[in-house]
Amino acid sequence: MGDGTVTVALDAMGGDHGLEATVEGAAVLSREASDLHILLVGDAPAISARLDEIPYDPSKLRVVSAEGCVGMDAKPREALDRMPHCSVATTARLVAEGQADAMVSAGNTGATILAASDHFERLPGVRRAALAAVYPTATRHGPHNDPFALMLDVGATLNATSADLVSMAVMGSAYSSIISNIEAPRVALLSNGTEATKGTAAIVEAHGRLLSGTLNFAGNVEGLDIPRGTVDVVVCEGFLGNVVLKMLEGVSEVFVDVARKASGRKLQWRMGLAMLGGGLKEIRRLTDWKSYGGAPLLGLDQVVIKAHGRSEARAVRNAVKVAAKAAKGDLIGRIRTGVTDLGLTGSDA
Amino acid sequence: MGDGTVTVALDAMGGDHGLEATVEGAAVLSREASDLHILLVGDAPAISARLDEIPYDPSKLRVVSAEGCVGMDAKPREALDRMPHCSVATTARLVAEGQADAMVSAGNTGATILAASDHFERLPGVRRAALAAVYPTATRHGPHNDPFALMLDVGATLNATSADLVSMAVMGSAYSSIISNIEAPRVALLSNGTEATKGTAAIVEAHGRLLSGTLNFAGNVEGLDIPRGTVDVVVCEGFLGNVVLKMLEGVSEVFVDVARKASGRKLQWRMGLAMLGGGLKEIRRLTDWKSYGGAPLLGLDQVVIKAHGRSEARAVRNAVKVAAKAAKGDLIGRIRTGVTDLGLTGSDA
Repeated sequence: MGDGTVTVALDAMGGDHGLEATVEGAAVLSREASDLHILLVGDAPAISARLDEIPYDPSKLRVVSAEGCVGMDAKPREALDRMPHCSVATTARLVAEGQADAMVSAGNTGATILAASDHFERLPGVRRAALAAVYPTATRHGPHNDPFALMLDVGATLNATSADLVSMAVMGSAYSSIISNIEAPRVALLSNGTEATKGTAAIVEAHGRLLSGTLNFAGNVEGLDIPRGTVDVVVCEGFLGNVVLKMLEGVSEVFVDVARKASGRKLQWRMGLAMLGGGLKEIRRLTDWKSYGGAPLLGLDQVVIKAHGRSEARAVRNAVKVAAKAAKGDLIGRIRTGVTDLGLTGSDA
Repeated sequence: MGDGTVTVALDAMGGDHGLEATVEGAAVLSREASDLHILLVGDAPAISARLDEIPYDPSKLRVVSAEGCVGMDAKPREALDRMPHCSVATTARLVAEGQADAMVSAGNTGATILAASDHFERLPGVRRAALAAVYPTATRHGPHNDPFALMLDVGATLNATSADLVSMAVMGSAYSSIISNIEAPRVALLSNGTEATKGTAAIVEAHGRLLSGTLNFAGNVEGLDIPRGTVDVVVCEGFLGNVVLKMLEGVSEVFVDVARKASGRKLQWRMGLAMLGGGLKEIRRLTDWKSYGGAPLLGLDQVVIKAHGRSEARAVRNAVKVAAKAAKGDLIGRIRTGVTDLGLTGSDA
């Protein structure tokens, strides 16, 4: 913890590609990062067998045995109750016990959230944990010209209060600041107009509270601003975030489908697509939110990164790196401070 | 009315292109359609002067004088109170007095909605009028292989009740049926999951009511399904519809921008773009909701079509055609019947 070495516990069994992807991602990272340890949690003999096939740094990797694994389509609560020592639960437990500084899973989203909620405490002043998604935009952000922005909550929770929205703004700002190296990320509320009076009662109230707070609050943004990347952090109720994120996914899907059809149909089009090369990739990137890193679950007292179920080795590696960066940057401490600064630890909480 | 000739009152002053676009659109249509009369409402001398320059059928067009016009950025209520005989108010009055069967305006959206609400009655069982938007999808709909679907409410109203959502389903179904020639349009509720239990309390309750109703109810759809075009009519609260529609607009804008940059940057990319031709247009079409027809305001006892402010002559012509089609297809009667069938005229209304 702090400035020294960081240990990340990785659920080695989760995700569509199972331990093929997770073990390879961890192995690659073990040879790249000097200050990072990884605990590979799951079916120890299977993980070891896979490790035997690929190069890795044994001083950076440790295999931790777990019993069972929650299937991608399983009912999360039921599965966790039936398998209390399964890989995702054990991953969370290692963090809760202080054996690791952050957890990563590419498995069942519901089970990851539940395992984290079972083993970690909610931070004071945060009424509900929120799932954030990183998505690509048309604008470059921060000193590294990052094309990504953050949106939260995308976890499909309903009835966000103004205090919930304010705490999401704090959490999103802290995360964005650490991960994208932005001193004071621009944070905005998603609404149906930029005026302070636009939106639900919760949005209007949150707007007022954020205006008088210490965050770099940019006011309200509209749907237009999501792909534009006008701000670094977009805050909205989970229901809205869920619909919006899935719509971006749908636009991407349709785009890819049309491009595929076009490339199959006409020699001229196939040649055109080939010549476009990078230009086409650029457009595709803008709608394909899936290929980018993990989604942080924010609001608990530990760092939790949910990698996408479809993650391959490279995406797993990125998610583990992001988890380590968040732990090193003291994400939890920054959220604690921000929540206190905005007065959320009082009667609202 | 009925099977005979239909008269459409057109606000000739509204829209970014003013009467240049509206008069030309009406003139073209006067020479195409045999069973349609158009009232051009506004600055009579200016309209007549413009008509002198272009070919039209004088037996199909009549100019009606009005005093003043609400600017695109004016405050709607204030402007209408100050100019009770302005073009959009006069357009609505002509319909209310039975001199026309439908109204069309490309002007200030708020003023169009207010003028309609001032002059028309809400239908029994409809608590609030809803603005619907036609948008392009990846799927072809109806017997004419229409690539468009309908979404409502996009008018940014908040706190839709279950009865509001049900009445929107009825209204959207009636409109889609007439305009896209679909016998029983597939109607769905936009939610954060397809299960009947997903979404806000209002969505869950509306789901139950629609299941037992007479519409072709397809259940809930997710954000993914919007660009896919899974259903013909997507129903959601105005706040959500507003964000979603503006986001589609933003994706389109970013796409066009990236394509422009690509075409400026590299000869190879420019050639690639040129070779793609139709394929590229296809992709662009999918995100560019603005180029398509008018948005109906549904729930009042008259047909109201709001054409986009940026409409040029062709879009105005399409909006007037759509208004005539809706009037001929007895949109209002169909909505009345649908609302009664779903029991909305009882205590809920």
